[in-house]
Amino acid sequence: MTKRLLTMRVMSASTPEPDARARLGLAAVEAFASRGFHGTTTRDISTAAGMSPAALYVHHRSKEELLFELSRVGHQRVLDVIRAAVARSDDPVEQLGDLVEDFVRDHAVAHTGARVINYELSALSEEHLAEILAIRHEFDVVVREVIDRGVATGAFTTPDTRMTALAVLSLGIDVARWYRDGGRWTPDEVAVHYRLLALRMVGVAGS
Amino acid sequence: MTKRLLTMRVMSASTPEPDARARLGLAAVEAFASRGFHGTTTRDISTAAGMSPAALYVHHRSKEELLFELSRVGHQRVLDVIRAAVARSDDPVEQLGDLVEDFVRDHAVAHTGARVINYELSALSEEHLAEILAIRHEFDVVVREVIDRGVATGAFTTPDTRMTALAVLSLGIDVARWYRDGGRWTPDEVAVHYRLLALRMVGVAGS
Repeated sequence: MTKRLLTMRVMSASTPEPDARARLGLAAVEAFASRGFHGTTTRDISTAAGMSPAALYVHHRSKEELLFELSRVGHQRVLDVIRAAVARSDDPVEQLGDLVEDFVRDHAVAHTGARVINYELSALSEEHLAEILAIRHEFDVVVREVIDRGVATGAFTTPDTRMTALAVLSLGIDVARWYRDGGRWTPDEVAVHYRLLALRMVGVAGS
Repeated sequence: MTKRLLTMRVMSASTPEPDARARLGLAAVEAFASRGFHGTTTRDISTAAGMSPAALYVHHRSKEELLFELSRVGHQRVLDVIRAAVARSDDPVEQLGDLVEDFVRDHAVAHTGARVINYELSALSEEHLAEILAIRHEFDVVVREVIDRGVATGAFTTPDTRMTALAVLSLGIDVARWYRDGGRWTPDEVAVHYRLLALRMVGVAGS
């Protein structure tokens, strides 16, 4: 699924005027990615969406509310992705492998949106930031539980589960920084290689 | 060395008015990190440095020139760091381990500056970007050469040297995103753990 389709789908869920909200969301992601949250005006977003300068305020209370909505929906979608990956198996090796593969593929495909929601956290209000950090904490919990299970079964070995879990997620998040459409590798190629790297990071023998 | 001292040292080299330039550099890093390049004005930087609104123009032709100087000096310094690490040994295992440890420690200590120079590349002019990308290409070359040597000696095994080299650097760069002063781990603790992770990523037996 392309980044555009993904954003459209994300933004069009459960809203009375899906087209206008989706267009604003897409325009905001592109603007925040290229000029940053603080370098983007509500007028920039509205006009890039083909709407009147103040149109953003029909759908969102502020630029920050729009960033928060993009961030909340994006983070929840990724949490669903990694939970679904873990639910497909009982074997920690398969669980971690599938989780990393799906997490990395997602960050390659949706790299523009992922950069915005990972790099503009400091632009959120204190209350909104707390809500997003709670979802991000769940990412850590999911990965840590899988690594802990692998250590318990003897499949994994690591001197620090917490830092290893962070590093596995970090590796996937940074894909959004360097990945370019039409570059050397497809999202699938990166995802498959990163699955191997993550399994090696937790010391899976023979990986 | 603290981030402030590091930036001071970097900015104070070979300039006729080290204090003014260093203060502008520090103020620019902090402003770009918190509001982004496009969300920061030259006035913001000058006044944060305790100078008159137009003072930046005494030392730099533009805000972009200042970002470029920070970026060029910062990238060159990191390239020197990883080249020095590799030069300390002939053993690819030690070379990669030392390289990762020093690269990661640097990105934890100087995380604010590292975020700016990694995340604001698109704000550079085409000519300046080309110069920075040439230095970044050298990062890849250094890491790839070490991994290739390790594969040649049989110490490393990887199905894709190029992607593995990118992932090793990526893991270090992303430390600048998540690392916080006074958080759970010291820069040394992260550096030592990441050394292990990187050696596992290249398949070092028993790591």
